[in-house]
Amino acid sequence: MRGVTSRRAVIALGGNAMTGPDGSATPAAQRAALAVAAEAVAAVVAAGVEVVLTHGNGPQVGNLLVKNEMAAAVVPPVPLDWCVAQTQATVGFTLADELDAALAARGLDRRTAALVTRTLVDADDPHFAAPSKPVGRYLPAAEAARFTALGQHWQDRGPRGWRRVVASPEPRSVVDAPAIAALVAAGFVVVCAGGGGVPVVEGAPLHGVETVVDKDLTAALLARELGADTLVVATDVPHVVVGWGTDAARPLGRVTPAELRAHAAAGEFDGGSMGPKVEAALRFVEGPVDGLAPPRRAVVTSLDTIADAVTGDAVGTVLTA
Amino acid sequence: MRGVTSRRAVIALGGNAMTGPDGSATPAAQRAALAVAAEAVAAVVAAGVEVVLTHGNGPQVGNLLVKNEMAAAVVPPVPLDWCVAQTQATVGFTLADELDAALAARGLDRRTAALVTRTLVDADDPHFAAPSKPVGRYLPAAEAARFTALGQHWQDRGPRGWRRVVASPEPRSVVDAPAIAALVAAGFVVVCAGGGGVPVVEGAPLHGVETVVDKDLTAALLARELGADTLVVATDVPHVVVGWGTDAARPLGRVTPAELRAHAAAGEFDGGSMGPKVEAALRFVEGPVDGLAPPRRAVVTSLDTIADAVTGDAVGTVLTA
Repeated sequence: MRGVTSRRAVIALGGNAMTGPDGSATPAAQRAALAVAAEAVAAVVAAGVEVVLTHGNGPQVGNLLVKNEMAAAVVPPVPLDWCVAQTQATVGFTLADELDAALAARGLDRRTAALVTRTLVDADDPHFAAPSKPVGRYLPAAEAARFTALGQHWQDRGPRGWRRVVASPEPRSVVDAPAIAALVAAGFVVVCAGGGGVPVVEGAPLHGVETVVDKDLTAALLARELGADTLVVATDVPHVVVGWGTDAARPLGRVTPAELRAHAAAGEFDGGSMGPKVEAALRFVEGPVDGLAPPRRAVVTSLDTIADAVTGDAVGTVLTA
Repeated sequence: MRGVTSRRAVIALGGNAMTGPDGSATPAAQRAALAVAAEAVAAVVAAGVEVVLTHGNGPQVGNLLVKNEMAAAVVPPVPLDWCVAQTQATVGFTLADELDAALAARGLDRRTAALVTRTLVDADDPHFAAPSKPVGRYLPAAEAARFTALGQHWQDRGPRGWRRVVASPEPRSVVDAPAIAALVAAGFVVVCAGGGGVPVVEGAPLHGVETVVDKDLTAALLARELGADTLVVATDVPHVVVGWGTDAARPLGRVTPAELRAHAAAGEFDGGSMGPKVEAALRFVEGPVDGLAPPRRAVVTSLDTIADAVTGDAVGTVLTA
C-alpha cells in the first residue's frame, strides 16, 4: 500500500456500525456493533489522525417513531427532529464508551466527546414539496390514515403496507461546527451530526423541522467546514460497484470525479443507498480549493478497512480531485 | 446590591425551566419554558461570566418510560440510562436554539454547545440496595407486577397506584468534564450533565446502569471539577425556607455551612426536593480549598433572579465557606 498522509478525517459510519446483522437496533445489538466499529476507528486514531465521526440512525429513529405512535394516547408524541436528537445521544454515549475503551487499550491518551448537533436546512427547500424518504414501520392503510389526518405524508408501499415518508432537504451548514472544531482542537475524537444532524431552519430562534437530512451529505459538508483532508464513507461493502447485480459488475478502485459523475448520471447507484454516498464523496472532493487547504480525498469502503483507507490508497473506492 | 465577581458559574436549571406551569413536558411547553430560562441565562453571560448549564429531566424521562412500556411488544425497550441520554439531547438542542437567539439578541458573540455527558457511579454504591427514587407513571398493581417480573422495583404508593423506584447513587466524577472544560475554554456556553448525567459504572468499556443520579449533586461535583467559583441552583422559589408550612416559616438569606447543616439535620428539607439542593450547595462550598482556587459561593434561588444571584449577593439563599 502506498502511504498517504491524513491530518484530519471525517468518517461517516453506516447502519452496520450500529445495528445487528439482521438490522436490529436493540440496545445489545447496537452496543455489539459499535464495539466492532470502535476498534476500526481506534486504529485510525492510532495512526495520528484527528478523527470526527458521524453516523446513521435509521432503525433507531424507526423505533422511536413506533413508540411515539403507540403511546400517543398517554404521552405527547415528539417531533421527528427530537427523535433524531435522541438517537444522537444514545449512539453518542455508547460509542464514546466503546471508543474510549478501545483508545485506552491501545495506550492512546485520547478521549471521545459526543456533541448534540444541529444542521441548518432551507425552509423553502424544494424537497419539502415532495417527501420521499421512508421512515418508521409499515402500517395497514386504515392506521396510516390516522396519521395522514394529522398532516403526515404516508405512501402505499405495496404488499407490506403503508409507510410514512418525509422530505430530505439539502444540508446548508452544520450549526455546531465551531463547537466540533473546538473539541477537535482540544484533542478529542468527536461523535457528532448523527443522522445527518437535527434539522433546523432559520429564525430567531432556530427551530427544528420534521425532516431527515442525509447523513452522508452532512458528513461531506462537515468535512469541508472542518478543513478535513479525508472523508471516509464506511459501509458494508468494500467498493462502489458499477453494473451491480449483472455479469458485468465491476468494483471501482481509484476513480476521478468525472468518471464517478458519469456513472451516477447513468443511473448506476440506488438513490436510497449508494447514491447519497457517491454524491457525498463527489461534493467533498469537487469544487474550489482554498490555496492553503490540503488536497481532498474521499473513500467509500467497508468498516473493517477504514484505517487502511485513511492511511493508504489501496482499499475502497478512492476519489481524488 | 453589593457586587461580587464571578468568573465561572455552573447553573442547575430546575424542572420549571423546561416544563409547563402544570408540569407538562410536551414539546411546546418545554420550548416555551426554555425560552424564559434562556433569557435569564443570557443575562448572566452578558455580565461576563463563563456559564455551564445543567438541567433536570424528571417529566421527560417519565414520558420516555411510558413509551418504552406501551410499545414493548413491537420495539425493544431501552434502559433508563438511554432515556436520560435522550433527554439530554432534546433539552440540549432546544435550549441551544433558545439561548443562541437570546445571546444574539443581546449582541453577544457567544454560542451554545450541548454535550452528551456521562457521570461515573460506583457499582457497589449502597443506594443500589435500597432503590427509592420514583420514576415514570403510576400503574395498577397488576400491571406493575409485569415489570417487577422483569427485575424492576415497584412500590405501592397509595391511592394513585404503584410506581417504579430506582436507586440514586452518588456521582463520583463527571466522565466528560474535560470536554466540557475544553468547550468553556473555547468560549461556548455549555449545556451538559442533564438529568445528573448518563450513569455509567467502571469497566472496559464503561457501561450504563439503570439508575438516576441527582442532578443538583452532579452539578455541585461538576462545578468543583471545573474550578467554578459559583454554583446556582435555580428553582421555583426565591429562597430556601425553614419552618416551611408553619407560622414560623422563614426564608434563609446569607447563611453559613454550619447553620445550613444544622437545619438539614433537623429535618427541615424534603428529601425529594429541597434536600438535594441544600446538600449540593453545601458540598460545593465545604471542604478543602486549593490555595489557588477562588472562594466558592452557592446560591439557591428562583430562575428569574439568577443573574442577580451570580453578580450580587442580595437575592436567594447565599452560602459561602
